[in-house]
Amino acid sequence: MTERMPKALGFDVFGTVVDWRTSVARESRPYLDALGRQDIDAGEFADGWRNRYGPATKRANERGGAFIVLDVLHRENLEDLLREYGIDPADVGEDTLAEWNRAWHRLDPWPDTVEGLTRLKRRFPIVSLSNGSVEMMVGMSRYGGLPWDAILGAEFAGHYKLHPQAYLRTAAALGLEPSELCLVAAHHSDLAAGRACGLMTAYVDRPMERGGAPAPDLYAKQEWEWSAGSFIELADMLGCD
Amino acid sequence: MTERMPKALGFDVFGTVVDWRTSVARESRPYLDALGRQDIDAGEFADGWRNRYGPATKRANERGGAFIVLDVLHRENLEDLLREYGIDPADVGEDTLAEWNRAWHRLDPWPDTVEGLTRLKRRFPIVSLSNGSVEMMVGMSRYGGLPWDAILGAEFAGHYKLHPQAYLRTAAALGLEPSELCLVAAHHSDLAAGRACGLMTAYVDRPMERGGAPAPDLYAKQEWEWSAGSFIELADMLGCD
Repeated sequence: MTERMPKALGFDVFGTVVDWRTSVARESRPYLDALGRQDIDAGEFADGWRNRYGPATKRANERGGAFIVLDVLHRENLEDLLREYGIDPADVGEDTLAEWNRAWHRLDPWPDTVEGLTRLKRRFPIVSLSNGSVEMMVGMSRYGGLPWDAILGAEFAGHYKLHPQAYLRTAAALGLEPSELCLVAAHHSDLAAGRACGLMTAYVDRPMERGGAPAPDLYAKQEWEWSAGSFIELADMLGCD
Repeated sequence: MTERMPKALGFDVFGTVVDWRTSVARESRPYLDALGRQDIDAGEFADGWRNRYGPATKRANERGGAFIVLDVLHRENLEDLLREYGIDPADVGEDTLAEWNRAWHRLDPWPDTVEGLTRLKRRFPIVSLSNGSVEMMVGMSRYGGLPWDAILGAEFAGHYKLHPQAYLRTAAALGLEPSELCLVAAHHSDLAAGRACGLMTAYVDRPMERGGAPAPDLYAKQEWEWSAGSFIELADMLGCD
């Protein structure tokens, strides 16, 4: 733990604020059933969708040019995943694919999220620093009651994390030096990229993010400024009543 | 009034959501007194600062290139205004100028604002569609308790209103067609520019915005989809309990 306090908190969202796996599995089950695919495990389906996300955002950063929002990448990844399961997306139909894709707007907060964010917000501006689109973040905030001060991160910055601009543009938009912004995330790779830009870092453990499977980025683990088991514990550490 | 309902509301902020004149006058009074300038009327000082805003944002749009946030333009305008009053900004000092400039982050909501926004938010996503910077909007929201779903508008779009991109990028970020977004503003010129982009329009009358002086853009008055005397009246019109 450190004595120096940040001036604002920027939150990773998928996995850190919301439980994407349980939610996407729940949202996907009826679609899979309607396709007669009761044999597909919805949790594994959610994992397959999510596993395509990192490479897709990395390719989008490398390609450059106009920023493509995550909803578009999620849709491409959904179609790719369906093909892997032997399902032709054309047979699913445009309206169903569009609605299925919006599963990522209806993600449940972790049980401690809303109380923790509410307490943290009393002392610090709290902003999303996610790769999710503005539309997705607004939908998710209204669905789960997330009290953000602002939606920043990838779409605002025009670059996906782990690109430095995603972190640096977020700090700049808040009128802060990178060292005055603290990134809160359940992922060591995200925190490492934020630290490389000069941000402060707070790790929040989310052992059930992948249904209990180990995190793929343990290699990036470091000693972070703060490390907590929940947002409520983080609020205690940061002196937020 | 019309029967068709918007899918989200985008709000002009200065004058529509907050009372900039009273607030900037109040914030400026101690600085003017400290300079021995009790002779300057703080309300007129606020008007002089605000009058430089329209031309400055227009010049910024015409200049193009990297977007310059409103805090920077406000600072230039403050220095220009001080010179007009025979005050050398260098005599005021950097720290004082920087703090004085942040008067625009501490603007009081109109008496009906928070209750009205809270009611409107129950039915519609509510976003700021202002020329203010993200930093300014976050400061103002925390100061006045404004429950935005997102901070959009000029800095997000990279263009100041009345540029069409300020309106169009805000709608696009919400995943909406322009015709699905309703601009809420106390200014006919703003509403006219929004309508020209296809937005729906709601006028809210703020007769005391300029201390009772007439609006400079009455020439742009049209029949808007909705016209209300307060956010609470607008909430009633839009069926928000």
